[in-house]
Amino acid sequence: MKIKIRKARKTDSGDIIRLICELAKFEKLTPPDIISSNRLLKDAFSKNPRFKVLVAEFGKELIGYAFYFFTYSTFLARPTLFLEDIFVSGNERNKGVGKLFWNELLKTAKKNKCGRMEWIVLDWNKNAIKFYQNLGAKHMKEWNLYRLVL
Amino acid sequence: MKIKIRKARKTDSGDIIRLICELAKFEKLTPPDIISSNRLLKDAFSKNPRFKVLVAEFGKELIGYAFYFFTYSTFLARPTLFLEDIFVSGNERNKGVGKLFWNELLKTAKKNKCGRMEWIVLDWNKNAIKFYQNLGAKHMKEWNLYRLVL
Repeated sequence: MKIKIRKARKTDSGDIIRLICELAKFEKLTPPDIISSNRLLKDAFSKNPRFKVLVAEFGKELIGYAFYFFTYSTFLARPTLFLEDIFVSGNERNKGVGKLFWNELLKTAKKNKCGRMEWIVLDWNKNAIKFYQNLGAKHMKEWNLYRLVL
Repeated sequence: MKIKIRKARKTDSGDIIRLICELAKFEKLTPPDIISSNRLLKDAFSKNPRFKVLVAEFGKELIGYAFYFFTYSTFLARPTLFLEDIFVSGNERNKGVGKLFWNELLKTAKKNKCGRMEWIVLDWNKNAIKFYQNLGAKHMKEWNLYRLVL
């Protein structure tokens, strides 16, 4: 059986929430409640979606997802593909699913004439850092992220 | 005369490019050429703009701009207002224009039910860091930005 990366459909909603809850468990975070799950699905599948979702399909099962959206570089005057999340379910790791997602995202970025791809990596996540460095990505060391919680 | 913050209009195009060139000079960067200036204006003022522009008006003159767009936090299931750029022209600094922009952005973020505001600060920009810390913002030290140039 082949792993297939495709755009998510509204009928994937239940599977997407299941995978998010699995990620929350893995990261020892509180899983989303019903209200925020519904808000997330609405923001993903509305007429003007706030973010895009790719899923990895293995047979009839969904085994992973990638969330992304487009930001913008005023310096380049080009959009940036910003990768918000990639997640692959526990038993399905180390089978190249992350790389399949990556290839699809890269294709999407080029199709949309993006100048860059960007994402955030937590500094303790050594496996992820190795994965991204192998892809030729650069840690923007002088670029510090600031946040105001509302 | 009072400084007024308002949404940019297509007729502000020339002034916006003038201010961008002033910023490029200040940062010793190459200013945008005609092709990328036109692409930037098209992306700002098309039917589905890729980013939003606020301007500061002092009398009949534009003295600054702010570029922003909405990203998304899947963790909160809420949009984030991402501030891409604030610039105030040389002679007009230290008159509170930055704070006026900030208040308008904060209002916009709340109106759009954002959970966060985020932006990048270069680590050598001590004045900016002080300004943002005074606003209650937090440097996300473990969150490292990665980039792939396409």
